[in-house]
This record gives sequence, structure tokens and C-alpha cells, in this order.
Amino acid sequence: MSLNAQSTPAQVRDQIQSGQWGKNTSGLASGYVQGNIVILPKAWADDFLKFATLNPKACPIVGMSENPGDFLLPSVGDNVDIRSHVSSYKIFRDGEFKQEVSDITDFWQEDLVTFVLGCSFSFEEPLIADGLEVRNITENVNVPMYRTNIECQSAGPFSGTTVVSMRPMVPKDAIRAIQICSRFPSVHGAPLHFGSPEMIGINDINTPDFGDAVTIKEGEVPVFWACGVTPQVALEQAKPPFCITHSPGCMLVTDIRNSSLSIL
Amino acid sequence: MSLNAQSTPAQVRDQIQSGQWGKNTSGLASGYVQGNIVILPKAWADDFLKFATLNPKACPIVGMSENPGDFLLPSVGDNVDIRSHVSSYKIFRDGEFKQEVSDITDFWQEDLVTFVLGCSFSFEEPLIADGLEVRNITENVNVPMYRTNIECQSAGPFSGTTVVSMRPMVPKDAIRAIQICSRFPSVHGAPLHFGSPEMIGINDINTPDFGDAVTIKEGEVPVFWACGVTPQVALEQAKPPFCITHSPGCMLVTDIRNSSLSIL
Repeated sequence: MSLNAQSTPAQVRDQIQSGQWGKNTSGLASGYVQGNIVILPKAWADDFLKFATLNPKACPIVGMSENPGDFLLPSVGDNVDIRSHVSSYKIFRDGEFKQEVSDITDFWQEDLVTFVLGCSFSFEEPLIADGLEVRNITENVNVPMYRTNIECQSAGPFSGTTVVSMRPMVPKDAIRAIQICSRFPSVHGAPLHFGSPEMIGINDINTPDFGDAVTIKEGEVPVFWACGVTPQVALEQAKPPFCITHSPGCMLVTDIRNSSLSIL
Repeated sequence: MSLNAQSTPAQVRDQIQSGQWGKNTSGLASGYVQGNIVILPKAWADDFLKFATLNPKACPIVGMSENPGDFLLPSVGDNVDIRSHVSSYKIFRDGEFKQEVSDITDFWQEDLVTFVLGCSFSFEEPLIADGLEVRNITENVNVPMYRTNIECQSAGPFSGTTVVSMRPMVPKDAIRAIQICSRFPSVHGAPLHFGSPEMIGINDINTPDFGDAVTIKEGEVPVFWACGVTPQVALEQAKPPFCITHSPGCMLVTDIRNSSLSIL
């Protein structure tokens, strides 16, 4: 059975765990929250939690392990085992990327703390449901992401500037998108900026720092949201001795409904 | 006693009725809804109500008389007498402005229906309370207003294009203003447009069709809201045999709290 939008989160996690699905999770289990994953030793996790709390638009926490060493995450889904329920992980040592693996059971340590961070998939869904076009989806590419000059609040070794994702829209649609995304503060919330890229330190809108460029049509303005790559950049700079993240696009599919994150 | 922001709505209405206050009501009775007034013969009122219903952002009805001929409006305030509680009225015959008067008791007819329409004063207050700058208030001028190419839905003889008011803001503040104004759908709600004036048929942002031009600073974008002048333009085009409106800025001060119009 191939996975698709109608698959349940448990089906997605099962196939990933058994090695039947090793690809990205975009478009799977429609309606359910997919999360960015950050796994850190307890000694670093407290400061990371503080960093996320101080920068909630870029680092929205939708779940975390109850105790260090816990690899089951019942708060985000039935039987979720963070060691094997993500299709691809990245292992970092001293801030340097070392290898990509499909299972982290062999890397597990008793002091590891897992964070599940909200992701833009959760707000793209209600935008599309409202009839708005999400260009990166229409063009079937990764959303373009940019480093900005918007400073994050620092916490211990964690600091840096905000990374944003960009979706071009006509102003009328941008206003509607601001309304819709305001209902989802735990998945990046309302945009941070629209219009002039220079105002937030982006020099070339056609050359994103991450992801792919998308077409900006006549009459459209770029609309910028805080992006979940922000904590990854902070991690690279903080250089913890050990750290595990998901690989881009290979998210943890949770049992949390996107709609349950709406505050209204 | 001079009227000010701390005056109660009843104090404002009393002084207006007794002829002690003949000026505009901007800044009086802070926290209370001030309304645009349209008074029409019953034969025209039904189509006007339909027009307002079809164009709620430009023509938000916050109150109306219960029966034709009623000059008391208990639904908008204690003892409100629409014949003398507005400081200045404009009388129109066959769509043509005839005279400005401070009391319409002598013009009252048994078939007149009164509409009280929401006004931007109600959303400027929460914008300022949130720390946003409202340029027309800072510069102490009338808000600039423009005819656009945004067609209204027609109803009987009432038709036309939307008139918008404009407040310049940096994008970050515009996003916040969209959030705040979305909570007030009955006083024009979220903006209709931001950025390029040409996209909505405005050729010269420095020459408003009504009100005064305001400074647009470097980095700011014009933000456009549907405006209560829209129904007045529709009235001028429909040319009802008889019609009374308030004079610009001389609103009906109601007992309705601005905050009570917030949907959230």
C-alpha cells in the first residue's frame, strides 16, 4: 500500500519504521501536524527550550519528550517512537553534519531530549483550503527560504538571525493569509513582513539561501513567514557536542490535527 | 463644560441638542461607537438596506430605526433622537445637496428610515491603543479617501465603486493592523488592499478625492480600508427624492462601546 494524503499518521509512521517509506512526507496524512525534530543532550536542551520560548514564531514547540531519555512521545501521537518514526535523520557532532541515517536507535543516549517544532505544512493546508495559491506547492518545489537581519533573542549558546520562508501573493490574498495564519500561532503564525525584501536584509529574492526560487508574478508581493530552519541555524552556530535533526522534508507525522492548533 | 474624550455619549448628545456643540465629534467620548447617518424615505430604504447588506465592508450597519417615522433609536443609545443629536446634517433633494442644518425636526417625515453605519473612528482607537501610528491623527487632518475601481454589488438604484480610506504603515505594523481590524468586521474590518494604488484604480496617492493627503514615509506602504463615504457616493448617483446625512466628521455618538463590536 502506497502512502498518500488519505493515509493515517499511524500508517505513515509504520511504513517509515519498517523501511517501506524512505522519502519526504510532504502531502501525506492530510490534516495532521508534521513536525521538525531537534534532539539534544539534556545539558543543552534547557537553553534550547529557552531559545524556542523567546522566539516562538520561528521555533514553535508543539511537543517534547517528558523526561530525558524518553524515546516515546505519547503527547504527539500513539506509540510515536522518535528513534524510528522519521524516514531520515541528520547526525551532528560539535555542530558539524556527520551522516544521514534512517534509524537512530543505535545513536540513542539516556540524556537525549526531543523537541517537535511546528512546520509550515500546517498553515499551507488551510491557505489552500481557502482557495489561496501557495506557489511552492503549485510549482512543486521546496519553499524558498532566506536569512534575514531580524535578530533572534539569545539564550545561552543559542543565537542568530531569523530565517524566513516566502510565498508570493497579490495583496488581497496576503491580507486573507494574514487572517488565516493568525489563527495558527503554534505553526509560525502571521507573516513577519511583506513587500521590500531589503527591509529585512534580503538582497536577492531570486536566490534563496535554502529551498528553491519560485515565480513572483506581476502585481504580487513577497510575503515572509518565520521559518523552522531558524533553530537549525542557531544549532549550527551553538555547536552542541551531539545533536540529531530530521532531514529536510522528512518530518515526524503526528496524531495532532492541524485544526486543533487553531486558536479560533 | 467643554466636551472631550472623557465625556459620556449622553453628555455629547445633550450639548449638541442644546446647541452648545456645533463642531465635529472626533475625539469625543472615547471608547464609544460614532456612526455615519443615512436617512431615507421607506420607498428607498429597502434597496439601501440591501445595498448595505451586499457591501458590508463599505456599508456596515450598526443600527437602524425600528419602524419608518421613528426618530428615537433606542438600539444605539438611551434617548437618542436622530432629529437633534447630530451637530450638523446635510439635506439632499433628488441627489443634490441643498443645505446644511443643525436640527432636522422641521424636515422630519413619517416615512423616514434611519441607518447608523460604522465608522473608522472605532478601529483607529484599538490601533492606537496597540501602539500603532495612525498618520491622519498624528498630522491632525482628515483621513485621505480615494475612489477606486472596486465595484460594489448593486441593489435597485444603488450602485457604484468602493471609496477607500488610506493609512500608511511599515509592513510589520500593517500586518498587526490587519489582525486588529479583523476583529471589527462591523466597522469596515480588515483592509481591502495594501501597496500599489494603481492596482485598485488610484492614479495619484498624493491627491485624495476626499479628505486630506498625509505623509507616506520611506519604507511605508499605503494600507486601504473600505470607507463609509461609499454609501454617500451611491446615494448621489441613485438620486433619491429626499435624503439626509450627517455632515463629514459630525457623527452620531452612540452608547455602543467600540469593544463590544469586536468579534474576538
